[in-house]
Amino acid sequence: MARNLLRAAAALTVATLVGCAAPSLQVAEMGSFHVGGRTVTLSGLPAKELVFTPGAPPLKLDPNGDFEVEALYARYTRLSNPKAKFPLLLWHGGGLAGTTFETKPDGQPGWENFFLRAGYDVYVSDAVERGRASWARYPEIFKSEPFFRPKKEAWELFRIGDTDSYATDPARRRALPGTQFPVAAFDQFATQAIPRWGTNDAATQAAYDAYVDKVCPCVIVVHSQGGNFAFNSALKYPQKVKALVAVETSGSPNPDTYDFSRVKGVPMLWVWGDNLGKFAFWERIAAQQEKFRNSLVRAGGKGERIVLPEIGISGNSHMLMMDRNSDQIAALIDQWLARQGLRN
Amino acid sequence: MARNLLRAAAALTVATLVGCAAPSLQVAEMGSFHVGGRTVTLSGLPAKELVFTPGAPPLKLDPNGDFEVEALYARYTRLSNPKAKFPLLLWHGGGLAGTTFETKPDGQPGWENFFLRAGYDVYVSDAVERGRASWARYPEIFKSEPFFRPKKEAWELFRIGDTDSYATDPARRRALPGTQFPVAAFDQFATQAIPRWGTNDAATQAAYDAYVDKVCPCVIVVHSQGGNFAFNSALKYPQKVKALVAVETSGSPNPDTYDFSRVKGVPMLWVWGDNLGKFAFWERIAAQQEKFRNSLVRAGGKGERIVLPEIGISGNSHMLMMDRNSDQIAALIDQWLARQGLRN
Repeated sequence: MARNLLRAAAALTVATLVGCAAPSLQVAEMGSFHVGGRTVTLSGLPAKELVFTPGAPPLKLDPNGDFEVEALYARYTRLSNPKAKFPLLLWHGGGLAGTTFETKPDGQPGWENFFLRAGYDVYVSDAVERGRASWARYPEIFKSEPFFRPKKEAWELFRIGDTDSYATDPARRRALPGTQFPVAAFDQFATQAIPRWGTNDAATQAAYDAYVDKVCPCVIVVHSQGGNFAFNSALKYPQKVKALVAVETSGSPNPDTYDFSRVKGVPMLWVWGDNLGKFAFWERIAAQQEKFRNSLVRAGGKGERIVLPEIGISGNSHMLMMDRNSDQIAALIDQWLARQGLRN
Repeated sequence: MARNLLRAAAALTVATLVGCAAPSLQVAEMGSFHVGGRTVTLSGLPAKELVFTPGAPPLKLDPNGDFEVEALYARYTRLSNPKAKFPLLLWHGGGLAGTTFETKPDGQPGWENFFLRAGYDVYVSDAVERGRASWARYPEIFKSEPFFRPKKEAWELFRIGDTDSYATDPARRRALPGTQFPVAAFDQFATQAIPRWGTNDAATQAAYDAYVDKVCPCVIVVHSQGGNFAFNSALKYPQKVKALVAVETSGSPNPDTYDFSRVKGVPMLWVWGDNLGKFAFWERIAAQQEKFRNSLVRAGGKGERIVLPEIGISGNSHMLMMDRNSDQIAALIDQWLARQGLRN
């Protein structure tokens, strides 16, 4: 444990130095694509009159026709001389998009930058319905209406502050003592929120599977709600997923029916922040994830776990990759991947 | 004119060679941010019951609370040794997002890549309501419902094929003869479509203005619906906008009330593709833009124009940056910017 801590500290120092010196990143190619999805044809819908400018005559629009829907968007940066054996895929959580991993709300570099500078080709995606993946008409294509997460819910659910510690006025918000989340940047973080649906799981899974099939072999680093999709994609493509890092994953397939023997060759690591015990919701989630991890281990797979406060790192929120010590946590993940032989 | 053509051909050759040899891009920093927007508080809305999984009990959700809305999203790539004096901002058009300028639907590098390799720091944004900028609840925050552009409308409006030449079956679509658009990739292009509102212009303008104020001095390259916003931002910040390239812009402020004397120091270039005369809609748009450009010139400003078929480049659609010869057109823009003294 002490050795782990020293390693983390050393890596952090290197990362910090690299960040400060800011040598050029040698980029071979950057680009993006949409993958997955399907064509839908709408017909029989009445024409709509829409008023574009107050006072202007309404414009008649025919909403019928063909649409491409339910694709996933990914943006990639490939290095000229990657040190990692496989690209790293960063999968976001619920109500959010790939921006989770870009510049942090406080303006500091996030995990995309860390892993690029650590020598990984990095892919950052927006799942179906989010960000540049875009969304489709409901209820004709998506089956329900979306919901929008109020800032209070994010503040509490992401363990930045306790229940009822949120206030509209930033000066009156009470964050958890010692939090690593950059509290002054919380409103900036809230600009990243994306409406979500509760009824798109099948389409989202299909697009993630198409994504893995297209760009892997790879390593998947997945956050929160994304967990369930990543565990399912690993089950579908166990040869293509070389490791799976589950960062505060909030869901997984049912461990009683998941075929763990198929993913025995996929090393998995769970990473948890601080203050889980202060929230019944997170205690329950963590217990469910432990059941999944233990089932993997019992089946002969590798399922490891880092609980940050247990190794002396305290104050981390659910949004580990935005916390002040995000580089320190990324370094722990990088070292774990190195121990799996995934780095030169 | 012949000299222009030779220059373009030379630049195209260089660009093609650079693309093939693919030397490393020396990147100093890449990142993203949201800018602009406001906090909205919703109250008094009834709780909603949402069914997440068919058969599961409904979950009660309180839609009230604070939200950050109407920000703009931008992603940037800064070079270690830029050749251009100012960063280049790429602004997308209607029903689309920043993906317009990333990898082209046929998988070839787009304008973001071209201008980075030509030595510009490049910013690519998603306007309010689009992509990672995200959207807000309606009618409580956004005042109307959005509309979704069917593929047939994009096919015709973007001058890929004539009226009624679209078919659901790709094999039965009839593109305009000699089109430069990669027709086989049209469905991939359609995955980039984003719902749009007709009632968000004021919020969109405010966010674009905040964006220009934050990241400029700069050069703006704007496409289609974005034109109106760019001309207005230039009027607000004439010292910060060092040049404005209007690529098939479909709108502008009223030339009878726009204060052209304020933007006399902002050189502007209009770029037009082919087949405008085949569409009454585009003939009208082009005439309106010419009125705007001529007013600028009469006021002592610089308003130049490239009509591609007039210099021997034929077949370009409205989506010039996705056409097969997109590098050739980008090179013309780059050369024009160089003539304005904006490149070392």
